[in-house]
Amino acid sequence: MPTAQPIRFQPATSTALLRQLLEQRTPGHSLEAPFYLDPSVFQADMALIFERHWIFVAVAPQVAEPGDYITVDVGHNSILIVRDDDMGIQAFHNVCRHRGSKLCEAHQGSLGNIVCPYHQWTYDLEGRLIHADHMGETFLKEQHQLRRVHLRNVEGLLFICLADEPPADFDEVAARMKPYLAPHRLNEAKVAAQVDIIERGNWKLTMENNRECYHCVGNHPELTISLYEHGFGYQPGPQNEEGLARFEQIVEDSHAKWEAMGLPSARLEELDSRVSGFRTQRLPLDRAGQSQTMDTQVACTKLLADFGDAALGGLSFWTQPNSWHHFMSDHVVSFSVIPISAERTLVRTTWCVHKDAVEGVDYTVENLTKVWNATNDQDRRLVELTQAGVASPAYRPGPYSPFTEGLVEAFCVWYVDRLRAGVASLG
Amino acid sequence: MPTAQPIRFQPATSTALLRQLLEQRTPGHSLEAPFYLDPSVFQADMALIFERHWIFVAVAPQVAEPGDYITVDVGHNSILIVRDDDMGIQAFHNVCRHRGSKLCEAHQGSLGNIVCPYHQWTYDLEGRLIHADHMGETFLKEQHQLRRVHLRNVEGLLFICLADEPPADFDEVAARMKPYLAPHRLNEAKVAAQVDIIERGNWKLTMENNRECYHCVGNHPELTISLYEHGFGYQPGPQNEEGLARFEQIVEDSHAKWEAMGLPSARLEELDSRVSGFRTQRLPLDRAGQSQTMDTQVACTKLLADFGDAALGGLSFWTQPNSWHHFMSDHVVSFSVIPISAERTLVRTTWCVHKDAVEGVDYTVENLTKVWNATNDQDRRLVELTQAGVASPAYRPGPYSPFTEGLVEAFCVWYVDRLRAGVASLG
Amino acid sequence: MPTAQPIRFQPATSTALLRQLLEQRTPGHSLEAPFYLDPSVFQADMALIFERHWIFVAVAPQVAEPGDYITVDVGHNSILIVRDDDMGIQAFHNVCRHRGSKLCEAHQGSLGNIVCPYHQWTYDLEGRLIHADHMGETFLKEQHQLRRVHLRNVEGLLFICLADEPPADFDEVAARMKPYLAPHRLNEAKVAAQVDIIERGNWKLTMENNRECYHCVGNHPELTISLYEHGFGYQPGPQNEEGLARFEQIVEDSHAKWEAMGLPSARLEELDSRVSGFRTQRLPLDRAGQSQTMDTQVACTKLLADFGDAALGGLSFWTQPNSWHHFMSDHVVSFSVIPISAERTLVRTTWCVHKDAVEGVDYTVENLTKVWNATNDQDRRLVELTQAGVASPAYRPGPYSPFTEGLVEAFCVWYVDRLRAGVASLG
Repeated sequence: MPTAQPIRFQPATSTALLRQLLEQRTPGHSLEAPFYLDPSVFQADMALIFERHWIFVAVAPQVAEPGDYITVDVGHNSILIVRDDDMGIQAFHNVCRHRGSKLCEAHQGSLGNIVCPYHQWTYDLEGRLIHADHMGETFLKEQHQLRRVHLRNVEGLLFICLADEPPADFDEVAARMKPYLAPHRLNEAKVAAQVDIIERGNWKLTMENNRECYHCVGNHPELTISLYEHGFGYQPGPQNEEGLARFEQIVEDSHAKWEAMGLPSARLEELDSRVSGFRTQRLPLDRAGQSQTMDTQVACTKLLADFGDAALGGLSFWTQPNSWHHFMSDHVVSFSVIPISAERTLVRTTWCVHKDAVEGVDYTVENLTKVWNATNDQDRRLVELTQAGVASPAYRPGPYSPFTEGLVEAFCVWYVDRLRAGVASLG
Repeated sequence: MPTAQPIRFQPATSTALLRQLLEQRTPGHSLEAPFYLDPSVFQADMALIFERHWIFVAVAPQVAEPGDYITVDVGHNSILIVRDDDMGIQAFHNVCRHRGSKLCEAHQGSLGNIVCPYHQWTYDLEGRLIHADHMGETFLKEQHQLRRVHLRNVEGLLFICLADEPPADFDEVAARMKPYLAPHRLNEAKVAAQVDIIERGNWKLTMENNRECYHCVGNHPELTISLYEHGFGYQPGPQNEEGLARFEQIVEDSHAKWEAMGLPSARLEELDSRVSGFRTQRLPLDRAGQSQTMDTQVACTKLLADFGDAALGGLSFWTQPNSWHHFMSDHVVSFSVIPISAERTLVRTTWCVHKDAVEGVDYTVENLTKVWNATNDQDRRLVELTQAGVASPAYRPGPYSPFTEGLVEAFCVWYVDRLRAGVASLG
Repeated sequence: MPTAQPIRFQPATSTALLRQLLEQRTPGHSLEAPFYLDPSVFQADMALIFERHWIFVAVAPQVAEPGDYITVDVGHNSILIVRDDDMGIQAFHNVCRHRGSKLCEAHQGSLGNIVCPYHQWTYDLEGRLIHADHMGETFLKEQHQLRRVHLRNVEGLLFICLADEPPADFDEVAARMKPYLAPHRLNEAKVAAQVDIIERGNWKLTMENNRECYHCVGNHPELTISLYEHGFGYQPGPQNEEGLARFEQIVEDSHAKWEAMGLPSARLEELDSRVSGFRTQRLPLDRAGQSQTMDTQVACTKLLADFGDAALGGLSFWTQPNSWHHFMSDHVVSFSVIPISAERTLVRTTWCVHKDAVEGVDYTVENLTKVWNATNDQDRRLVELTQAGVASPAYRPGPYSPFTEGLVEAFCVWYVDRLRAGVASLG
């Protein structure tokens, strides 16, 4: 029999270096350069972070009907996600059990059975091998089923876990998030647009960029139309005392209104206090207060549910290590961050609207996607400038703002903790 | 004096890993993933397989006249193959003995002497340095001859060996193949077409793909016009008993006819039982039975020799580690597989016809090359899908069919044996 | 506090190999292949040669006015060179002290203060942090100044040193070169043209190519119009006895004339006898003797200074490890060689003329740049052929000509000495 565990390279030197880097991390400061640059740290990130935690990869509307499938890549893993005939969603490694051919080439499609293009080994939508020619009488099909990948559908958000034993606390996260997310009915929505961009930077710079808005005023003219200036931290002082008080009153009033509508709004903040770190908060939007658009009005006139009011602000949901989401009355926008190499990262943005909304009538893709396409491109540039800068031998970790970069620090604390745990588990 | 042996990197860790991989190989199963992926295994493949065995690189008609040359790359080696004034074929390292400049840039051409473009050091077609300016009175030209590469012309097929001491059994292989190959007179033919493709896959996947036709029926509509369904293995059963018996009768009748014409046809099968592993077999072709074309008729009406009959099927010749050839009555098609990196491979296909055949009159390149251009592209896709699949951490070596993948197993056995021998020789 | 020294990878194996390579270097022969190929040797070249010595990177006229800046890359270092308000020239690491973003993206421009695009931290032209939002009351701006890079302006040639303690002998080099260079008034000139080319070869092959003219007669038809055949070494013999004597007389006469004009001309040759190795020589040019142009006449009719005579030949200045320059009566042409990777090198050529010269009236860029654009491209090909050749396992270091390749040997001796010193300093 083949070995149960594949043989992988694990140079002892890089593990030793990794331990040293993890020990030396300075709290409240950006990470040492090798975390953003080194291929062996990248391998550790993939093996110990992305192959051991719950990773957001898609939304349920991407596989709406039985037989619909998508493939997503996480590192060298190609994952096949398919809606089965009972409307369940299955995830498998997209690799034939014969000689390892990739099964489905396309990023999305529809199929009856899963047929390997090489020698036509055939699997059903539950991953069972149901046909293989020429293998002889003693060949056991049941020993050659597709290898399964853990999947959770959290109110329409699809998370996978590549570990044999996924972090157990995720079900609790899902349970706590359910009342926040469920009212927006993402499972019944449709994908209106999906855009992939490649950032020439380490994935952690992408995430750190997402976790603060210190850079927003200087870089995001479109996004800051709807975002309140004080929503993501501020050094208090006489000059902004009045503005801050006003903002806090708006939040309080909004929360009261939304809670009364059955929309939980209170902040949950567990980014660095659990394995499946997350954070949520429903925040008011400025001006019309309806949506992250150029005019802050809804981008889709057919709302996701019968809310009665379109001005629900934005219910945001952040997860470690790789996603964030904004649920509004008219659409949901989701971001999945997937590392490609130490210095390249995929950012996949997906916009969903009510499944009966008609393009050109209820919404236009241009208007729906304008703010985040612009913002993503601005963030891409900032990530790339930072990647170029930390690659300099002159780079030294610098201090985070105690007022505006607390969630960046929470990301780093979570990351370093999880990597320490992973390295420790290697013995 | 410079060191006799160049200094090369040999990280101890990768040799240890290689030994472990070789020890753990599971018979009858595809290879572990690092064999297809790892740069240090690739270095071992180049140093221990491609620099120590006889490698098929070209056909003699590529250097038909005195002064004609070609350059071929095997790993970082650039080899200069030249027809000398006595009609012999010489092979040299294409590297000046002064400061190492490449001598001939082009892939083919014609020259009188070999003149280095850098400082005009000049060598004759036997590799002797005959001119070098400014080197002083004590400089010894005879110590700066071109470094020679072993070359054998096996009835028009050119094999080189980069080792100081090439495998000694190759002359016996050449002698045994001579009666099979000589009647097709490749030495007197001309090149009608040559096509290079790059496959984004490890060279062993290219070879393994070549060594079975399990995948043919599902992937090669053009090739299977002339190939008999039963020619390359089948799980026997009631449903194909009659067809198999019919095919075996055709082979028996054909062999009797061809042997009577002076064309040896019996199978020689020594793929994994010697250092210079090879296999040959003359097999009937289906329908008109003449050639691997879309209509199974000859592609070139001027035959390679005065055979009397065009329906000679195909004399196939497979060599380890990197070639296969089909000799038909009207043309010879040869395949040379050259690794470029762990994940990229060159497949060079050369079609030869009678030297007096006239393009547009006796043959068209389109018709001559159609089947294998299509087949190569289909195989390229399969190799690339498999490369993508084995790169997944989820890949595990799977079982070979005992009926249709025996020659794949023979390739793996030969490869693992030779690599073991090579690693052992490193001490 | 963050660690003072960044954590970098230093695999012990590669240092051991480097020591072995350095010990085994054969005098009078080209270097062993790993010096041109190996990524870890490249890392050593960057860390021990390019980050510890004085590197020529630009000419002063590139930052003529206060606020003018350029950025130059040396390895992963991005250096910001800026003319300050007192007309001094400053060099900083182009990296924000907050989270490491690159500060200036463009290769050149003009600015008042240096503002980080990420969070708008703002530095003045002396590198002082003068503004940073949200950092709290205890944050000390003076601890977050830009990191300074050593810079010397040698009569208009800008050299930087990335080491904390630069080689101390450079001031003496500058002092000795001042009388040679000062008469050409480069500080007051303007840039007429700058061309970057990428050579697919190791930077040492680029430098070795520059240090001999053995290859000129066979490769540089444009350059050899103005260069005397005997100016760069020749094996003496009866056939060239007369020509050599004539050339030596011309040099003697020219030097007498130029020295009388206040233009030092005698050769200084210290390429391998000091840390900041250099060489200079004023050599006559052939024919009209004025400039390295196609007709050997000046390319710019407005001379760099009031010389009285345009036929000043060429004052050449070579520095280890990465530059050469030709100062003529009408223009200065400077070459900066910057490694990109083990197998890629940037060659930046800059032509300067009198700042009041008018393009289209006093000079054309086409005529000014024609000889060296052609020569650079020819040299690029030779470097690339040699890179391809030394990559062959068949390459062995070959002998240098004792007559024409003495300065190549001097380069190698300097390089090996400096690398030995660097490796020794690692302990």
